[in-house]
Amino acid sequence: MVRIINLGAAQMGPIARDEGRAQVVERLIAHLREAKRRGCDLVVFPELTLTTFFPRWWLEDEAELEAFYETEMPGPQTRPLFDEARRLGLGFCLGYAELIPGDETRRKCRFNTAVLVGAEGEILGKYRKIHLPGHAEHEPQRAFQHLEKRYFEPGDLGFRVFRGFGGLIGMCICNDRRWPETYRVMGLQGVEMVLLGYNTPSRHPLTPDHDAPSWHHNTLSMQAGAYQNGTWVVGVAKGGIEEGVHHIAGSQIIAPSGETVAQAATEGDELITAACDLDLGRSYKAHIFDFARHREPRHYALITALKGAVTPEEGARIEAAAQAAREAAE
Amino acid sequence: MVRIINLGAAQMGPIARDEGRAQVVERLIAHLREAKRRGCDLVVFPELTLTTFFPRWWLEDEAELEAFYETEMPGPQTRPLFDEARRLGLGFCLGYAELIPGDETRRKCRFNTAVLVGAEGEILGKYRKIHLPGHAEHEPQRAFQHLEKRYFEPGDLGFRVFRGFGGLIGMCICNDRRWPETYRVMGLQGVEMVLLGYNTPSRHPLTPDHDAPSWHHNTLSMQAGAYQNGTWVVGVAKGGIEEGVHHIAGSQIIAPSGETVAQAATEGDELITAACDLDLGRSYKAHIFDFARHREPRHYALITALKGAVTPEEGARIEAAAQAAREAAE
Repeated sequence: MVRIINLGAAQMGPIARDEGRAQVVERLIAHLREAKRRGCDLVVFPELTLTTFFPRWWLEDEAELEAFYETEMPGPQTRPLFDEARRLGLGFCLGYAELIPGDETRRKCRFNTAVLVGAEGEILGKYRKIHLPGHAEHEPQRAFQHLEKRYFEPGDLGFRVFRGFGGLIGMCICNDRRWPETYRVMGLQGVEMVLLGYNTPSRHPLTPDHDAPSWHHNTLSMQAGAYQNGTWVVGVAKGGIEEGVHHIAGSQIIAPSGETVAQAATEGDELITAACDLDLGRSYKAHIFDFARHREPRHYALITALKGAVTPEEGARIEAAAQAAREAAE
Repeated sequence: MVRIINLGAAQMGPIARDEGRAQVVERLIAHLREAKRRGCDLVVFPELTLTTFFPRWWLEDEAELEAFYETEMPGPQTRPLFDEARRLGLGFCLGYAELIPGDETRRKCRFNTAVLVGAEGEILGKYRKIHLPGHAEHEPQRAFQHLEKRYFEPGDLGFRVFRGFGGLIGMCICNDRRWPETYRVMGLQGVEMVLLGYNTPSRHPLTPDHDAPSWHHNTLSMQAGAYQNGTWVVGVAKGGIEEGVHHIAGSQIIAPSGETVAQAATEGDELITAACDLDLGRSYKAHIFDFARHREPRHYALITALKGAVTPEEGARIEAAAQAAREAAE
């Protein structure tokens, strides 16, 4: 059986602060129709697709902040997107800010979320961003803020892999793509395609020396994650100059070989497509990255034992203790 | 204090099966002298530097096999290399096949090993290759064998980080460089420079579809390891056509930005150099890859819990069990 996903990566240009959901959903629907015309099965939208990238502002008014969030998916404003996708027979992946208002059983929570939606409109999977970048307090020395650690909680759903579109699909969001643990946890569940959206300022206010290679870092992290796990990776940007801040574009579809097979040419609304053969990852998973033959987890203890870095001496001590505990258990 | 290591990556061309240690050591000494002339402090030689890459052959005669190994380092044949390095005031990293003959206290062991040697000739650190590629049994369907799993045991020293040359230095070998766990375990110990040698056939006998991007895979894995841990990575090949098998060259010195700053232009004996500022990694470690702020190890359980891949359902079960165990412990 040939297992091909005809994939559309639906890059978005800037979304202004005063652009309403209805206008954005119209742009998304235009993407869906173009994707249908080009034979797609599945369309991937960016991180926080429905609004401007609001974590760049310090917002003290709770109501003003929470206007950027969705309390249901689909809700009244996103229902037309779901309806049109189902009418066209297309699945999609959508990033958005999720608000759980809270009640007597659960406290209020806010997440940076993505959902995978099947061709019948059913939600096949949900992911909440785990690696939140930026900071939680106001840092006025920055040209712009990056308040994801204030406006979101770290995701509580893990890196799950979902069955859909004839394969095994995972999701992550933006900064997650820079962390090899992200791909590996999904790789250990056999993932065949990782879908991710991003909003990435081309300038980091505190580390200007990182600016020049920021485009390279984007490609590098996604290509390495693809190759090292024998999986497709689809990275979709919201790019261009949004409310005065320039974001990289460079949306791309990356094969399990780590090679980019389709790439956006603009920083605006642009659909790129590829016919993604899920079986292209098989020979990587069967040979060079046959985890069961080649991984050596007994030497990986620090990866889960530690959060932050320690001295080499402390690292050696923790490694030795883990080794001793393992030997005692065996 | 400026912390710069003037580094020489001493790529080697092919070594014939009948080339003796004395001839090879002469080539290594020529590298050292050129490195001294170019102001180096530290010279990195490839994996299994002292002989041809013998795991390509099925060798049944134990004596014939073990002639490729060293039982002491330095030994009589490598002493001239150590002497010349000390005379020149140069440190070096050398890969070789290590044989522990065994006695009443320890059984015989064979490892694929590298040592880091200080400018006074002292051994600062030792590493034994953990991720052994290839196979253990004769596979006559292959154009050539890759019997590392037969001729070596997986390293038993972990991924340690050593103090030397004013910084924190780690080592790994060849196939280790494709595994993000390798760099991460060292990154969690603050590594500032990772030294590695490789012998990498440009053709994989069983997966010809992997051939075209094999050069890309080499660069990709090392650049990602560098960037994602804010460390220098130095990859040094034995390249060219050795005993009828072509090996990639492409030795390179990679900055903590993930950018290659020096790269070999040939497939033969060639020294490339760079002045490596160890502090270039600091801003990565302090911001985007500040592990203590941004890593989320509670979602990494599968990385150490599993060796091989499992189904998504099994993965979710293991993740949930790890979560429950952690909550119970807290």
